[in-house]
Amino acid sequence: MKSLLLNADMGESFGPWVMGMDHQVMPHVDLANIACGFHASDPDVMRRTVRMAAEHSVGIGAHPAYPDLVGFGRRSMAFSAEEIENLVLYQVGALAAMCRAEGTEIRYVKPHGALYNDMTHKPEIFSAVARAIKAYGSGLPLMTLATRDTSSIRELAREQDLTLWFEAFADRAYDADGRLVSRAQPGAVHHDPDVILDQAQRIATGQPLTASDGSELILTADTLCVHGDNEESVASVRAIRQMLNQLKERA
Amino acid sequence: MKSLLLNADMGESFGPWVMGMDHQVMPHVDLANIACGFHASDPDVMRRTVRMAAEHSVGIGAHPAYPDLVGFGRRSMAFSAEEIENLVLYQVGALAAMCRAEGTEIRYVKPHGALYNDMTHKPEIFSAVARAIKAYGSGLPLMTLATRDTSSIRELAREQDLTLWFEAFADRAYDADGRLVSRAQPGAVHHDPDVILDQAQRIATGQPLTASDGSELILTADTLCVHGDNEESVASVRAIRQMLNQLKERA
Amino acid sequence: MKSLLLNADMGESFGPWVMGMDHQVMPHVDLANIACGFHASDPDVMRRTVRMAAEHSVGIGAHPAYPDLVGFGRRSMAFSAEEIENLVLYQVGALAAMCRAEGTEIRYVKPHGALYNDMTHKPEIFSAVARAIKAYGSGLPLMTLATRDTSSIRELAREQDLTLWFEAFADRAYDADGRLVSRAQPGAVHHDPDVILDQAQRIATGQPLTASDGSELILTADTLCVHGDNEESVASVRAIRQMLNQLKERA
Amino acid sequence: MKSLLLNADMGESFGPWVMGMDHQVMPHVDLANIACGFHASDPDVMRRTVRMAAEHSVGIGAHPAYPDLVGFGRRSMAFSAEEIENLVLYQVGALAAMCRAEGTEIRYVKPHGALYNDMTHKPEIFSAVARAIKAYGSGLPLMTLATRDTSSIRELAREQDLTLWFEAFADRAYDADGRLVSRAQPGAVHHDPDVILDQAQRIATGQPLTASDGSELILTADTLCVHGDNEESVASVRAIRQMLNQLKERA
Repeated sequence: MKSLLLNADMGESFGPWVMGMDHQVMPHVDLANIACGFHASDPDVMRRTVRMAAEHSVGIGAHPAYPDLVGFGRRSMAFSAEEIENLVLYQVGALAAMCRAEGTEIRYVKPHGALYNDMTHKPEIFSAVARAIKAYGSGLPLMTLATRDTSSIRELAREQDLTLWFEAFADRAYDADGRLVSRAQPGAVHHDPDVILDQAQRIATGQPLTASDGSELILTADTLCVHGDNEESVASVRAIRQMLNQLKERA
Repeated sequence: MKSLLLNADMGESFGPWVMGMDHQVMPHVDLANIACGFHASDPDVMRRTVRMAAEHSVGIGAHPAYPDLVGFGRRSMAFSAEEIENLVLYQVGALAAMCRAEGTEIRYVKPHGALYNDMTHKPEIFSAVARAIKAYGSGLPLMTLATRDTSSIRELAREQDLTLWFEAFADRAYDADGRLVSRAQPGAVHHDPDVILDQAQRIATGQPLTASDGSELILTADTLCVHGDNEESVASVRAIRQMLNQLKERA
Repeated sequence: MKSLLLNADMGESFGPWVMGMDHQVMPHVDLANIACGFHASDPDVMRRTVRMAAEHSVGIGAHPAYPDLVGFGRRSMAFSAEEIENLVLYQVGALAAMCRAEGTEIRYVKPHGALYNDMTHKPEIFSAVARAIKAYGSGLPLMTLATRDTSSIRELAREQDLTLWFEAFADRAYDADGRLVSRAQPGAVHHDPDVILDQAQRIATGQPLTASDGSELILTADTLCVHGDNEESVASVRAIRQMLNQLKERA
Repeated sequence: MKSLLLNADMGESFGPWVMGMDHQVMPHVDLANIACGFHASDPDVMRRTVRMAAEHSVGIGAHPAYPDLVGFGRRSMAFSAEEIENLVLYQVGALAAMCRAEGTEIRYVKPHGALYNDMTHKPEIFSAVARAIKAYGSGLPLMTLATRDTSSIRELAREQDLTLWFEAFADRAYDADGRLVSRAQPGAVHHDPDVILDQAQRIATGQPLTASDGSELILTADTLCVHGDNEESVASVRAIRQMLNQLKERA
């Protein structure tokens, strides 16, 4: 069994405003989704975050978003496919320059917030992101949501010669299709550290989760998304990392 | 004698607002300084402008600026050297991605507006721009102002392994040191097409200009900056191109 | 019959970028919808535009929009009702300060672009705009789309003590419900000056238009929206003004 | 002796980013300098902050700044006097609308960051801010730095019919002219709570401070600026409030 990689959003400070406990989280993750200035970050935060990731040998992912700082890229915006292709390219390129300056490079692309959600629901947006990655031309994988049935999205990716990395969440409830239950619903987000750790272990070992309708759900994931917003979530990241290390030792 | 290249600022539209007659100018220039979204442009305008430059085999230069859209990058801002390094890197990278998408690449860097001016007056800003170019790592030349005595700036560049391209202006008056007379002064900008064409020819052939104090000024330039803001300036570009072509035929 | 007022979007330049022929249009309209810096304009453009409107005794309307300069406020964005209330308030207040500085005041509010469209389709957005106007507290009327049946929107307005000004378009095709045919449809926008003038006259005199399905459509409008983007549209504004003046003389 | 009012910068969060402990500070101050969206804040933060100030009967001041979110308005920018007048007006108006919506009003204007500093050094910028306040037209006082000799600035204000409120700092070192020692200098900022409290008491009671050159400095101030960035500074605010209350009881 391939080991599950931990990814976390990083570098989401902006100018004088600090967000996230990047220093505490970076040592425990494998992949850092680094904001590119459209929903968060600025050139200085990007440079520092890339440097920190490189120092910890953490794989760097571009984390492009809709241009909406005040809304943190969480609001869907009605862009054309061409506009989405170009705004992804712009952000990937900006981050790539920071990587070059720090002697490293982008390893993958994970869209942020509303762009991530829109991409998982709308094939034309998924294709626009895919075209941006293809146009960029380094064969970067695209990180997207692991659901129950990923055959159609894998077919789309195959047509465009695109590698997919599927990600799952340890702290979110899933519906029967393996989609995230909307945050507007009660129970959408898990807060109990034991529940989160148990869900992480089930995903890591291929055991079923219980979906919101009570059905069993098996997710096949390459990576698990974790968060470093506060002390509790950082503790959760450490616990998940320890659990994954133990799985590896046993293997 | 090496032939003088024509460069022009391009891609300075923004969202719904159009600026410049890029379609009319592009066929007549050798180098396009393409805005990168901080003083003008957006990802769509950048992509289209890069494509147009590539179609005309025009060399693409990154045209980074201070982050000041409403002020068009014309206002000096008190950035630290590190901040300048990072904002140049960010913009160069963003444009580089557009170039990759269009099968081409950046050939040089020319800072815009207040950043260009500040760089020619303040060695620490010049060095910050130089460090950004070095960190980017493709040996891109930096375009800067041709003055009477460029020895100190060439020394700075040599220390940083940086290639310089010197540029001159056909429509601006020069002082005795070969610096541009401030636009606030009367006579700072030439409007007579014959005067502009004559100044271009003098620069192209190494003949002296008359500086604002009446002294003779010889500028050694690799490239001449031209403008495509309106019908008159586009006519001027065509006349200068024709003059340069005739010089070349005679040579 | 109350005479039909002409309104036009004004002050949509931004920093160095010019949009619209405000100087040519201002003398011919009754009402100026002045951009407030979120989809276009900046404090300097706002001040100049308010001054110009005051000089021509043109009634000033706040023209608030979603915060999306690069998209010119034309993209729908998923704001909460509370956020919409606050962003309308912010923009109305900013323009009101310019009016105070020029010895005049805001007379009405007309949302721009996607906010205008969303308001006409979604009662919760209409109510959010209405609450902003009520919170501002000067009894400002809200300009909104005249459709075949405005009873439900008038009921909503009555509940909130809000005065409505209904506006119609001379250059747009209508469907049977009196809604604008989407610009994506062929024939959605009239370009023939005679067709535009005829539609303006029908609206001004209460005669029926022919809707896109061939049915007759009578619109009851307080004001007609005209445009000043180019020479043709400015000519059209002058022709409509002349027609309205002749109607008035006859009355 | 008139009692010294406490003022603090408030509402400097932006979108998802939180700054300042406004809830802890608001109960202890008399005046809240509320950010207007150019260096910090957004319409929602402004509305909430105005509401909180009104609930605590804290006087609301507009806190306008240069348009530089990423730089938090701390970088000087080369604006014309007219541009400064208009950007102050815009921000004052936007905040005024929030005040109207919450049944309160602006009591004064205190420019932020680089605009505040530039205003105290450059008479043409001071005059531009003064003209904005006069154009706004409610006789709002302008808060500015109390120095040793304020005669020239009081003369400037008198010419423009402008009321000045002078402010002093308890946690900053002063030079012999009563200007703040630059933060770049060692000892520019006091961190010892006892030193801060002592300086506050000296200012409140008209006793001399010791300037950076050892000379005695008496500052005549209407208000003292305090900060609520962290637990220490909030404790300091509470201590200063208690000291001022005790002075009042004795009086």
